Amino acid sequence: MAAGRDSDTGRIEAFSDGVFAIAITLLVIEIGVPHLEEGTTLFGELVEQWPSYLGYVISFLQIGVIWANHHNRFRFIMRSDHVLLFLNILFLMCVAFIPFPTALLADYLQGTERAAAGAVYAGTLAVTAIFFTLLWLYAATNYRLIDRNLDPFLVRAMTRRYVFGMVAYLFAFLLAFVNVAASLILIVVLALLFVLPEPGEHAKFSRRDSEPG
Amino acid sequence: MAAGRDSDTGRIEAFSDGVFAIAITLLVIEIGVPHLEEGTTLFGELVEQWPSYLGYVISFLQIGVIWANHHNRFRFIMRSDHVLLFLNILFLMCVAFIPFPTALLADYLQGTERAAAGAVYAGTLAVTAIFFTLLWLYAATNYRLIDRNLDPFLVRAMTRRYVFGMVAYLFAFLLAFVNVAASLILIVVLALLFVLPEPGEHAKFSRRDSEPG
Amino acid sequence: MAAGRDSDTGRIEAFSDGVFAIAITLLVIEIGVPHLEEGTTLFGELVEQWPSYLGYVISFLQIGVIWANHHNRFRFIMRSDHVLLFLNILFLMCVAFIPFPTALLADYLQGTERAAAGAVYAGTLAVTAIFFTLLWLYAATNYRLIDRNLDPFLVRAMTRRYVFGMVAYLFAFLLAFVNVAASLILIVVLALLFVLPEPGEHAKFSRRDSEPG
Amino acid sequence: MAAGRDSDTGRIEAFSDGVFAIAITLLVIEIGVPHLEEGTTLFGELVEQWPSYLGYVISFLQIGVIWANHHNRFRFIMRSDHVLLFLNILFLMCVAFIPFPTALLADYLQGTERAAAGAVYAGTLAVTAIFFTLLWLYAATNYRLIDRNLDPFLVRAMTRRYVFGMVAYLFAFLLAFVNVAASLILIVVLALLFVLPEPGEHAKFSRRDSEPG
Repeated sequence: MAAGRDSDTGRIEAFSDGVFAIAITLLVIEIGVPHLEEGTTLFGELVEQWPSYLGYVISFLQIGVIWANHHNRFRFIMRSDHVLLFLNILFLMCVAFIPFPTALLADYLQGTERAAAGAVYAGTLAVTAIFFTLLWLYAATNYRLIDRNLDPFLVRAMTRRYVFGMVAYLFAFLLAFVNVAASLILIVVLALLFVLPEPGEHAKFSRRDSEPG
Repeated sequence: MAAGRDSDTGRIEAFSDGVFAIAITLLVIEIGVPHLEEGTTLFGELVEQWPSYLGYVISFLQIGVIWANHHNRFRFIMRSDHVLLFLNILFLMCVAFIPFPTALLADYLQGTERAAAGAVYAGTLAVTAIFFTLLWLYAATNYRLIDRNLDPFLVRAMTRRYVFGMVAYLFAFLLAFVNVAASLILIVVLALLFVLPEPGEHAKFSRRDSEPG
Repeated sequence: MAAGRDSDTGRIEAFSDGVFAIAITLLVIEIGVPHLEEGTTLFGELVEQWPSYLGYVISFLQIGVIWANHHNRFRFIMRSDHVLLFLNILFLMCVAFIPFPTALLADYLQGTERAAAGAVYAGTLAVTAIFFTLLWLYAATNYRLIDRNLDPFLVRAMTRRYVFGMVAYLFAFLLAFVNVAASLILIVVLALLFVLPEPGEHAKFSRRDSEPG
Repeated sequence: MAAGRDSDTGRIEAFSDGVFAIAITLLVIEIGVPHLEEGTTLFGELVEQWPSYLGYVISFLQIGVIWANHHNRFRFIMRSDHVLLFLNILFLMCVAFIPFPTALLADYLQGTERAAAGAVYAGTLAVTAIFFTLLWLYAATNYRLIDRNLDPFLVRAMTRRYVFGMVAYLFAFLLAFVNVAASLILIVVLALLFVLPEPGEHAKFSRRDSEPG
C-alpha cells in the first residue's frame, strides 16, 4: 500500500472490480438459443436476433469503460469514509442493473416499443453516470478524499469530464424517445471517448516517474 | 501480511468477498423481461413489476452492508481456526441464498401471499444476522481469535451492536406477518444504520495512526 | 511471495478460488420460485420443495470444504508445471459442474428416479475426489512440486487422507443405488470430516511459528 | 510489483482473470435438467443430452487454456496503454460470449443444423484467437509494451505460435461446414497443444532463476 493511502480504498476497488467482472460476464446469459420452427433455419434465426448481439456488444463496451474509469479515479482517491462507501454501493447498484435494460433492448429494439426500451437503456446509463459524478464530487470537493498533491487544474478537468458525460448520457436518454438508433450511436461514441487518455494523464504519469518507486 | 496476522484470515476474506460480489450481482437475473399482451405497453408493464426493482434495491443494499460489516470485522480477527472457517461457510450459505427470497418477494409482494413472502425474506436476513453474531461471539470470546490489543469496551460495543442487529432482524421477521411494508421499511432502516460509522471507530483509527506503519 | 515459491501456483490458486466462489454462489439460481395453483399456499409450496434447499445446503458445504482443502494443499505445493495446470483445470471442471447434479437431485429426490439422481450427484463428487487425489499424487510423488522440507510422514498421511476420501465418495456413489438417503448422509459426514484439522497440522504450524516470519 | 512494471497491467490481468473464471463457471447453467415423459428414464434422458456435456468439457478446456495463455503473455507485457486496454476489452468480449455458442452446439449438434451450430462455435473461437493475436502484435511490435530484455527469437516464436493458432481456428471454422466432428476434434487438439510448454519457456525461466529475486 502506498504511503498515506487508506487500505479501505483498496477493498472498495477490489469489491467493485468483482461486481464489474460479473456484470459484464452475465450479459451473455440474456442471449437465448433460438428454437427452430417449421421452415426456418438456424442461421436465419441467429441473424434475426441481431439486437441481442448488438445489446451485448454495447453493454460490454459500457461496463468495460466504466470499469476503466472507476479504476483510474480510485488512483486519485486516497482515503475513504462511510459516505463514499455508500455512494459506491449505489453506483454499483446501477452497474449491476445494466444486464436487465440490455435484455429489454434486445427484445424490443425491432418492435413498436423500441423508444421505451431505448429510453430505459439510456436512462440506466445516465443514472449510472450521475452516481459516478456524485462519487467524484464528494471525494474531490475541497480535496476531501483525493490525493492532496493533485494539480487543481487536473481536478477541475476531471469534474468537467464527468459532468459532460452525465449531461451527454441524459441527452442520449431524451434522444431515445425521438430516435433510438441515434441514441445508441451516441452511447457508443461516448464509450469510445471515455476510453481515450484522460486530460493531463501524461503530466501526472511523468510526475510519478520522476519520483523514487 | 501484518505481523501476527494469520494468512488464513486473508484467504477467508478473499473468498467471502467473491461470494458477496457474485450474490449481489446475481440479483439482477431475477428481474424478468416483461412479455407484452394485447393492449399493454412496455412502459406500463415495466411499472407493474415495481416489486422486482424494490427487491433488487433492498437486497443490493443488504448485501452491500453485510460485505462492509464482514470486512470491518475481519480487521479485528487476526487468527483463524476450523470452527471459524466452518461458521463462515454457514454464514456465506445464508448470504448466497438471498437472491431466492428476493425473487419470492418480487413475485408475491402484491398478492394475498405477501406476508409469507415477506416473512421468508426477513427470516433469511435474520438467520444471516444470527450466523454473523455467532461468528463474532466465537472469535471475540476471551479474545480467542481477535487482536489482543483491542479495547475491551470496543469489543463489548461490537457484541451489543450485533446482538441488537440480530434481535432487530428477528423483529422484522415477526413484523412481516402483521405488515410487510413496515417490515421492509425496518430492514432498510437497519441497513442504513449498519452503514454508519461503528462505535469507537474513530478512536481505533487514531490509535493506529500513531503507530509506526 | 515466499522464497522458493513459484508465482504460478499463486495464479492457479487465485483462478481456482474464483471458480469455487462462483460455483458455490450459482447454486441458488437452481432454486425456482414456486407458481401457486388453485388451493395451494405459498408456505405449503415452499415446504414442498425441500429437496431444493437440501441440495443447496449439501452442495454449498461440499464446495466450501473442497475450497478449504484445495487451499490447504496449495500451501504445500511450491512449484507448478503444465501437467499440474492441466490436472487443476480438469479438477475445476468437476467442481464447476456440481450445480447441475444438485439441480437434478432437487428435482428427482422425491420420485421413483431418486436412485439415478443420487448416483449422478454422488458420482460427480467421487470424480471430483479422484481428480483432487491425482493432483496431489502428481505433486507429491518424489516431492515433484511440493515443499522439500515437508515431513515424509505428513506427506504420506495426506495421501492416505485423499485416497480414503476418494474411496469413501465412490462408496457413496454405489450406496445411492441402494439407499439415496444413506448416500447423502455419508456425503455430509465426509464434508464434516474434511473440514476438521488435518493430520499433523498442529506440528506444521508450530514449526512455522518458530521460523522467522 | 516488479521494477519497471506498470501497475496497470496488473489490474488488466486481475479483471481479465475475473471474467475468465466467471465465463468458465457459467457454462454449467446452460445444461438443462431433463423433464421426463411417459416411458423414459432419467438415466436415458441424461445420456440423450450428451452434446451438453461434450460442449461443457470442450468449452471449459478452451477457456482454461485461454486463461493460461493470457496470463503467460501478460508476464511479458510490462506497460499498458489505452489501445491495449481497448483490445483487451474486445478480446474479453469474445471469451465471455463462449457460453452462448456452447449452448447452441449442445442443442443442435444432433440435428440437421449441426454444421451451422458448429460453425458459429468454431467461428467464435477463431475471432477470439484473432483478437488475442492482435493484442500480442500490438504489444510486441517494436517492443512497444513488452519487456525490453526479451530475446527477439522468443518474441518471434510467440508471434508464430499465435498466428498459427489463429489460422488453425479459422480452418476449424471452415471445417465445421464439411464435418462438425472433425472440427471439434481439431479444436480439442488445439487446446491440448496450447496447454503445452511454450517455445523457449525453459530458457526464460532459467534466466529468471539466476537473477536475484
